[in-house]
Amino acid sequence: MSIITLTTDFGLGDWFAGAMKGVILGIQPRAAIVDITHEILAGDIRSGAFALAASFRFFPKQTIHVAVVDPGVGSGRSSIAVQTKDYFFVGPDNGLLSLALAEECVESMHRLENTKLLAASISNTFHGRDVFAPAAAYLSKGTSLSKMGRALTHYQKLSWPIPLLDKSGLRGEVIYIDRFGNAITNIGKEHLGTLDVAALKIAVAGNKTPFGFGQFYQEVAFGRPLGLIGSNGFLEIAINGGNAAKKLGLNVGDSVSIRPEVQSRG
Amino acid sequence: MSIITLTTDFGLGDWFAGAMKGVILGIQPRAAIVDITHEILAGDIRSGAFALAASFRFFPKQTIHVAVVDPGVGSGRSSIAVQTKDYFFVGPDNGLLSLALAEECVESMHRLENTKLLAASISNTFHGRDVFAPAAAYLSKGTSLSKMGRALTHYQKLSWPIPLLDKSGLRGEVIYIDRFGNAITNIGKEHLGTLDVAALKIAVAGNKTPFGFGQFYQEVAFGRPLGLIGSNGFLEIAINGGNAAKKLGLNVGDSVSIRPEVQSRG
Amino acid sequence: MSIITLTTDFGLGDWFAGAMKGVILGIQPRAAIVDITHEILAGDIRSGAFALAASFRFFPKQTIHVAVVDPGVGSGRSSIAVQTKDYFFVGPDNGLLSLALAEECVESMHRLENTKLLAASISNTFHGRDVFAPAAAYLSKGTSLSKMGRALTHYQKLSWPIPLLDKSGLRGEVIYIDRFGNAITNIGKEHLGTLDVAALKIAVAGNKTPFGFGQFYQEVAFGRPLGLIGSNGFLEIAINGGNAAKKLGLNVGDSVSIRPEVQSRG
Repeated sequence: MSIITLTTDFGLGDWFAGAMKGVILGIQPRAAIVDITHEILAGDIRSGAFALAASFRFFPKQTIHVAVVDPGVGSGRSSIAVQTKDYFFVGPDNGLLSLALAEECVESMHRLENTKLLAASISNTFHGRDVFAPAAAYLSKGTSLSKMGRALTHYQKLSWPIPLLDKSGLRGEVIYIDRFGNAITNIGKEHLGTLDVAALKIAVAGNKTPFGFGQFYQEVAFGRPLGLIGSNGFLEIAINGGNAAKKLGLNVGDSVSIRPEVQSRG
Repeated sequence: MSIITLTTDFGLGDWFAGAMKGVILGIQPRAAIVDITHEILAGDIRSGAFALAASFRFFPKQTIHVAVVDPGVGSGRSSIAVQTKDYFFVGPDNGLLSLALAEECVESMHRLENTKLLAASISNTFHGRDVFAPAAAYLSKGTSLSKMGRALTHYQKLSWPIPLLDKSGLRGEVIYIDRFGNAITNIGKEHLGTLDVAALKIAVAGNKTPFGFGQFYQEVAFGRPLGLIGSNGFLEIAINGGNAAKKLGLNVGDSVSIRPEVQSRG
Repeated sequence: MSIITLTTDFGLGDWFAGAMKGVILGIQPRAAIVDITHEILAGDIRSGAFALAASFRFFPKQTIHVAVVDPGVGSGRSSIAVQTKDYFFVGPDNGLLSLALAEECVESMHRLENTKLLAASISNTFHGRDVFAPAAAYLSKGTSLSKMGRALTHYQKLSWPIPLLDKSGLRGEVIYIDRFGNAITNIGKEHLGTLDVAALKIAVAGNKTPFGFGQFYQEVAFGRPLGLIGSNGFLEIAINGGNAAKKLGLNVGDSVSIRPEVQSRG
């Protein structure tokens, strides 16, 4: 069996993901196709990159991960396939694969140019169906990357905000808001290191009352905020039983600061 | 082949359902994973329980049903697996499984405690990935429940409203509103029994004109309401060609009364 | 392996698609079930027909395509299965299959009447589960159409707007708006034929400034509109990096005109 995952902004309201699956099964009838998500905000390369990076390693080795968030479809941007020590990645070379690849040991990387391994007729607006689906299906049948096209030595990287540590504390930002309204930040558990989080407070943009850390959602009272290390290893801001992003007015890019608890003197 | 279904409130916009599937396939590559739904309202245990109860018996015997609507994730609530005469159920012990289990003959029930059968590292916020997915995958490989953890003798039950019959008629309430705006009630066909529904009228909260029963949506004129026994065996309030919940202003918990048709005397 | 696709308006928030899959797998455990979409607007037969027609041919030959957008469920409308040279189609005979069938060579067509090949108990509101799912599963096991019920010689066709060519140019209309806000028209590449599109302008309802044709989205500046032949072979109106339907105020049925570029004389 051969697993192919899909991460796209095609949505589920139209036929786009379905058509990709039809193409894959036409080439590789034994593929097990798994949706990671098709609901990335249209054209939001960064969120697509984050979703892929958050999930790819939970799949068995040799899984082929296809990602398509591709506002530049039909333009000059390259289509690529990348083999790492444990996985394959297929998608546009626009940064979408870069967060996942940053965690992997890249072994080889090629353009998707061999027209024998693509659709007979390639539209200018739907490379998911005409380029990436067939390439993934051929990879899953054992076709080597080197047959796909010219080798590449670099892939496009996304700029990514790094948390800053200064005398007032650690300052990061919100990078993703999930379905529950949890605001995931760029502050990883490695940034918190051996800090005693029990002595720290979290302040978020525009919100006046800092709050503390916890281990799980129901550790605080219903409706109260907390910070915790989420399932991805990043600090996330949550509200027990509520939507933190909505209730705290948080958006991607908003600042999140971690500071020692200040003793009230008043 | 081994079928594993998923019923969650994880949504389809993030990578949560995908990560669960990756974990399952890593343990049991032959699993056929079927989504029942991932769009249960966040934290709405009752709706999740209803969706599972409405669908589980349409799957082949021995199907493993995983359900995760789990606002208490990481707290003290138990994680459980239940074997019934025909199926397996896996999820948090918070009532989510209880409507389905009420229809089944329970054979054994165990906590999910055996760390060899769970993820190597268990997050406090995503037991769907780290606890329930691996447990389901091992069950599908034939691991017995008794290896999962201590046996249990009780599971958490949801309180569930029972229709009341008094001298003025039968009174129930709306328990679920589906995609089409059909308002499903807690009045089952067994409650209507051998009543002659042609002589009965349905009155809903806040709506002034009672309406009658029908067999199918288009039996009444376009835009008109009717009550009918839905595909689940419960009375549902519908509008031919329209959204009954919106047009009649119906919400979960609203009352629905069935009374003999009163002859107009005016 | 046997592929069965599903195109419905059941949504993903309830258990309807899941229940259909359970029924299919109970009859045909080896089915590979692929969702084309379940998010057709409730009761919107035309959009369902368009989604099916846009995708069915990307699946391997002998795929069984099930479509259910069925406001007349339970009424007198027929349930049918159709075999074409390359595919099978199963659904209500309400026009939903007709756009796909118009592109295929129909070989045989039968009603779904044989109660041995349907659910033991058939609800009046969910033929997806009780009629179409079992019929598709039996077809995938090799049951012949002729065992399903009486032969038919006609199927219901949707009315479909044809682009008009007059002295002022070619006039069509919007027939589908996709997730990205691209407004797909009924003007196919065959209507444009050998015209030199570089010399033509596109005018849409209510919008004052006509715009030109392009090959891919980023060919025009960010935020600017263009017309291009989409992945389906139809002219679509798009905006580079934006939602054309929203920004241009386009709805299904709105007119789209193609005219020679008029030289400004002012």
